[in-house]
Amino acid sequence: MSAAKVKAAVMGATGYAGFELAKLLLRHPHMATPLFLTRERESAAHTLESFYPELAGPTSYPLEPFSWELLKSRGIDVLFLATPHELSRELVPEALAKGLRIVDLSGAWRLKEAANRAVYGFEDKDAATAAKLDQTAVYGLPELHRDEIRNAALVANPGCYATSVIVPLAPLVRSGLVDAKRGVICDCKSGVSGAGKKPTQKTHFVEAADNFSAYSVFGHRHTGEILEQAGLHANELIFTPHLLPIPRGILSTIYLGLSKPATPNEIEIVLREFYGDAQWVRIFEHGKLPQIQYSLRTNYCDVGFQLAPDGKRLIVVSCLDNLMKGAAGQALQNLNVMFGWSEKEGF
Amino acid sequence: MSAAKVKAAVMGATGYAGFELAKLLLRHPHMATPLFLTRERESAAHTLESFYPELAGPTSYPLEPFSWELLKSRGIDVLFLATPHELSRELVPEALAKGLRIVDLSGAWRLKEAANRAVYGFEDKDAATAAKLDQTAVYGLPELHRDEIRNAALVANPGCYATSVIVPLAPLVRSGLVDAKRGVICDCKSGVSGAGKKPTQKTHFVEAADNFSAYSVFGHRHTGEILEQAGLHANELIFTPHLLPIPRGILSTIYLGLSKPATPNEIEIVLREFYGDAQWVRIFEHGKLPQIQYSLRTNYCDVGFQLAPDGKRLIVVSCLDNLMKGAAGQALQNLNVMFGWSEKEGF
Amino acid sequence: MSAAKVKAAVMGATGYAGFELAKLLLRHPHMATPLFLTRERESAAHTLESFYPELAGPTSYPLEPFSWELLKSRGIDVLFLATPHELSRELVPEALAKGLRIVDLSGAWRLKEAANRAVYGFEDKDAATAAKLDQTAVYGLPELHRDEIRNAALVANPGCYATSVIVPLAPLVRSGLVDAKRGVICDCKSGVSGAGKKPTQKTHFVEAADNFSAYSVFGHRHTGEILEQAGLHANELIFTPHLLPIPRGILSTIYLGLSKPATPNEIEIVLREFYGDAQWVRIFEHGKLPQIQYSLRTNYCDVGFQLAPDGKRLIVVSCLDNLMKGAAGQALQNLNVMFGWSEKEGF
Amino acid sequence: MSAAKVKAAVMGATGYAGFELAKLLLRHPHMATPLFLTRERESAAHTLESFYPELAGPTSYPLEPFSWELLKSRGIDVLFLATPHELSRELVPEALAKGLRIVDLSGAWRLKEAANRAVYGFEDKDAATAAKLDQTAVYGLPELHRDEIRNAALVANPGCYATSVIVPLAPLVRSGLVDAKRGVICDCKSGVSGAGKKPTQKTHFVEAADNFSAYSVFGHRHTGEILEQAGLHANELIFTPHLLPIPRGILSTIYLGLSKPATPNEIEIVLREFYGDAQWVRIFEHGKLPQIQYSLRTNYCDVGFQLAPDGKRLIVVSCLDNLMKGAAGQALQNLNVMFGWSEKEGF
Repeated sequence: MSAAKVKAAVMGATGYAGFELAKLLLRHPHMATPLFLTRERESAAHTLESFYPELAGPTSYPLEPFSWELLKSRGIDVLFLATPHELSRELVPEALAKGLRIVDLSGAWRLKEAANRAVYGFEDKDAATAAKLDQTAVYGLPELHRDEIRNAALVANPGCYATSVIVPLAPLVRSGLVDAKRGVICDCKSGVSGAGKKPTQKTHFVEAADNFSAYSVFGHRHTGEILEQAGLHANELIFTPHLLPIPRGILSTIYLGLSKPATPNEIEIVLREFYGDAQWVRIFEHGKLPQIQYSLRTNYCDVGFQLAPDGKRLIVVSCLDNLMKGAAGQALQNLNVMFGWSEKEGF
Repeated sequence: MSAAKVKAAVMGATGYAGFELAKLLLRHPHMATPLFLTRERESAAHTLESFYPELAGPTSYPLEPFSWELLKSRGIDVLFLATPHELSRELVPEALAKGLRIVDLSGAWRLKEAANRAVYGFEDKDAATAAKLDQTAVYGLPELHRDEIRNAALVANPGCYATSVIVPLAPLVRSGLVDAKRGVICDCKSGVSGAGKKPTQKTHFVEAADNFSAYSVFGHRHTGEILEQAGLHANELIFTPHLLPIPRGILSTIYLGLSKPATPNEIEIVLREFYGDAQWVRIFEHGKLPQIQYSLRTNYCDVGFQLAPDGKRLIVVSCLDNLMKGAAGQALQNLNVMFGWSEKEGF
Repeated sequence: MSAAKVKAAVMGATGYAGFELAKLLLRHPHMATPLFLTRERESAAHTLESFYPELAGPTSYPLEPFSWELLKSRGIDVLFLATPHELSRELVPEALAKGLRIVDLSGAWRLKEAANRAVYGFEDKDAATAAKLDQTAVYGLPELHRDEIRNAALVANPGCYATSVIVPLAPLVRSGLVDAKRGVICDCKSGVSGAGKKPTQKTHFVEAADNFSAYSVFGHRHTGEILEQAGLHANELIFTPHLLPIPRGILSTIYLGLSKPATPNEIEIVLREFYGDAQWVRIFEHGKLPQIQYSLRTNYCDVGFQLAPDGKRLIVVSCLDNLMKGAAGQALQNLNVMFGWSEKEGF
Repeated sequence: MSAAKVKAAVMGATGYAGFELAKLLLRHPHMATPLFLTRERESAAHTLESFYPELAGPTSYPLEPFSWELLKSRGIDVLFLATPHELSRELVPEALAKGLRIVDLSGAWRLKEAANRAVYGFEDKDAATAAKLDQTAVYGLPELHRDEIRNAALVANPGCYATSVIVPLAPLVRSGLVDAKRGVICDCKSGVSGAGKKPTQKTHFVEAADNFSAYSVFGHRHTGEILEQAGLHANELIFTPHLLPIPRGILSTIYLGLSKPATPNEIEIVLREFYGDAQWVRIFEHGKLPQIQYSLRTNYCDVGFQLAPDGKRLIVVSCLDNLMKGAAGQALQNLNVMFGWSEKEGF
């Protein structure tokens, strides 16, 4: 461990995902204390612990105004963007040109197909470069793209809902067991931190507590990621997000029709063989279903399933912490892969 | 209002549904103060307000030991059973023989088909009488069986989940718009009061709060009611209950394949025509979805829907308060129908 | 009931207290459907049910732009102000001049002493009139000022915290049992709706849930009301508000030193004699303490107490619903008193 | 770090505090995988991860039946008791005789004065030994008794409420600034995990959520600890526990009269000098008050304060996580002190 520590900068550490990432980086044994950057004038006058007093202590963590010079003078190796996708879209080309490696937590670079990107309405200054990066960016789900992430310059960290759905779906769809034409229904439920730190009527305690609701029906931005990564056609997938009255955690209930009757054992084998010795996916035995509390504040994506008595219909339940495996934890896992460390390092 | 007041007795008023019913009956302008009965020796020493101090006030509400003599001497007209189904199964035949009208909130008498009753494992002393009552009992969803309820001796008050699913499903299935063979998926979420007042590990605050989970997958008792009342075959329905970290409220997300492409207007017409001037069902316009808070502490079942862009897949969202339209409120609505009062009376 | 119904207008029905009041007025047997007024251009384009879909139904409740002409043309008898105190301060003099009776839910007119009003920083156009109204306004706690409220033109509806503290304190201080010089400590806890409907970082679900905090220590605006109504000197009172992670409800724990050792019976007698047949105050027997759930969604202020073994120190616990007895319910109770109806009418 | 790892056994790892401790020990770099013991026959058939699926993974953690032989054969160095106090009272004398070092998380050995122990009603088989151990046991608040803990055989881990109150009180009382005769009032609020894992009516989600209540007024068991460790007389202290609708966390609001007017700076100096370089106590600057979220899932006890304008009355607010600094975290801190490691080790 005498190796020099890797230097990271974090843009957007005052948001929920960014702050979770900040805390993880501060504990990571191979990382130097990160540089915390902001483009908001107000924030730049403050420290990270002034936004999150839980971080109070002998060390102070100033928020510094973003500049390329600062990144260079501090010798930053890797830049984490926990920023709105518009800002990620703007910063990434230049950052790559300057030789930085990037993990972007926004939706800016996750999608390969133009049709799927349309929902974001990106307005790129240099469309040619952006189009190229759209294809070279690596979708940062290590369980699916470990090898590409290892050498990637730009890792597009997946969406929280998308991760909860792709992890169980990818192996099942690839196995040929799923009859996708019968429709893949993902009924997903997320805690309120998924809606971001900015106060809105929807996230007001009095509106969110003792409540539950569906939203963005047939229109959520994560749909494209799921289609591309799970290998589904647009008309095969229904993805319905709901807002849970809890601070964090996602549970997705996934309904699948099978192409022929299967046994619980067959399903379990497909899942276990796919994930093999993956460190951050837990496959539950048939009939044992994960709950949100099991993976809360961990980087696990838990997957359980139950087969209908007729063997032809399958319910899969997956859980993860939207700020961990759904955002900051996955970003750290990607960092570990990018630098050749154990995927458990720093957790 | 010079008419004599109707006299009711409530068995099980210390449970959540029973207590909600007690409060409703105490406010109902045509009802005398109810008789509160119990067969638990401990409870009989107490008053209702000792269990629920919110009821404290100048009037005391004693819990009296159940006996047929007491029911007779007090001139009880209608008996509400908020009891375990085994007890309802035992008491109802004799109660009917004694000329009482009954609203049973348990699952004892809801099911017409033996195959659906099997999950309860009823052990009847007088099987012939029970079998007869199984058929004469009226399923107490007024929006579907108003006329039969009017003169019914035994009203089987529906399950909470079942109500939330049957209300939107019945008109859509009957309309022929739904291709049930493609599967009807009901992803349902309920607050914790649905699990009853008895403390268990599952209902412990520390386990239920900040959590969310699926349970009774492919095995919940309300499945039979839904099949019978919505007119579905067993292999056409998937019904998955989940436990929400809120005290009360149900939201059901229902996924339907349509037999041919439809327009939002067609769907809305089917629902509106079916419910016409129903007092306690609210149909939302296309794209406006109900939330749990909207119907909380009311007797409404709210129904909203959103059609996929292809017009072939439909998502319906329904909400109700599991202790109101899902239990006590519906029981009161049934009472109103049985006695020829406005269905809004007493709310 | 052939009497003409009383006509009310409500300014600010889109806020939490205003909406609670709207619902109460809509159910009140002696009140016509209220006129809902707003000065916000945006709101005026909407209906009340668009803000609170729980109100959806056959009847629509438009929000109309405020004007004196409208009030007159509709024959409004009583104006409820659920508005910021600055606006109440501005509107009330003219409303009174026009012969309206007013119940103001803000803090604008509650305080008799200039020193106590200072914290609000009122800027009155007509200081002389305002000063006069400060003295003629009646503090709308019916249990203390029933007779004055009866004929009052301007009723200043009490603060939520203030009500929870004054109800138990007033009789105890007046009885001479309390040695106020030893200090009266009010440790008060309120649900989040007390902070208003406007989304802020403090009321964001993720910040408020799983959290608890003290605020406005030695500086909350309700301090003056408590001093004036309980009859205490400024240096005798400590009042500390805290934010509970629940939507509504207040519990106040009050610590009192007694001037000489007392028995539980003496304390109970003081409280019971003072409140006599008050409809909306419940005195609990010694050692039985109210909980927030007991009075939730009711207009009760519950009061319990426990005496130290030495008989010289007394802990009083009071509970109420901050939107009911702490705001809208109390406003309705005041209305009942003003028009000579039963104080229970409409609840 | 080539030193042999220290071996611990944990009795009661299925309770909330015991499980929190298990997780901490499993991460501690100087500790071998702990031995998890139980005397409940049912539990002995299971694993720790069967009670807490969040622990699921490649390694299984069996619960083994308690026996002295097992402790010996496994070479256990230190025994953690997360057991009912009766069981701790029974096991400790023999454990000490066998040379084990003990950290007891129960209330069994915290009290020096017989009068304070009375509330527990201990029934010791060997009263003489127990009496001796009562005096030799070290109260395990490292910030007060670091030196004695270092060599202690028996460390009595403090109560959760007690820690939250003693940490701020001890330095202020010792400084002479506090006029204890005017009364020290501790209004304390705790999350539900403080009531233990066993399901009861009080901890039922439906009863605890949306609620708040005081309990054990003038009678909570932690009173004795506070008196002894803060140096107060029984009639000087009022300690009132309340139940917060959150899973974990304690906030204590403490009201103090000062012997003479003080400045904020004087108060801050007293607190800062006392805690000096303590790792797990954070003193906030005047007017900045801790909130429960700040110390949640950390081992910090946070202390803030606000002085009345008259300088004679002081409000102190302290926060901690009842399962961390209030139980398991403090036990680990004690372990660190006992073995000469950094107090931050393992966190």
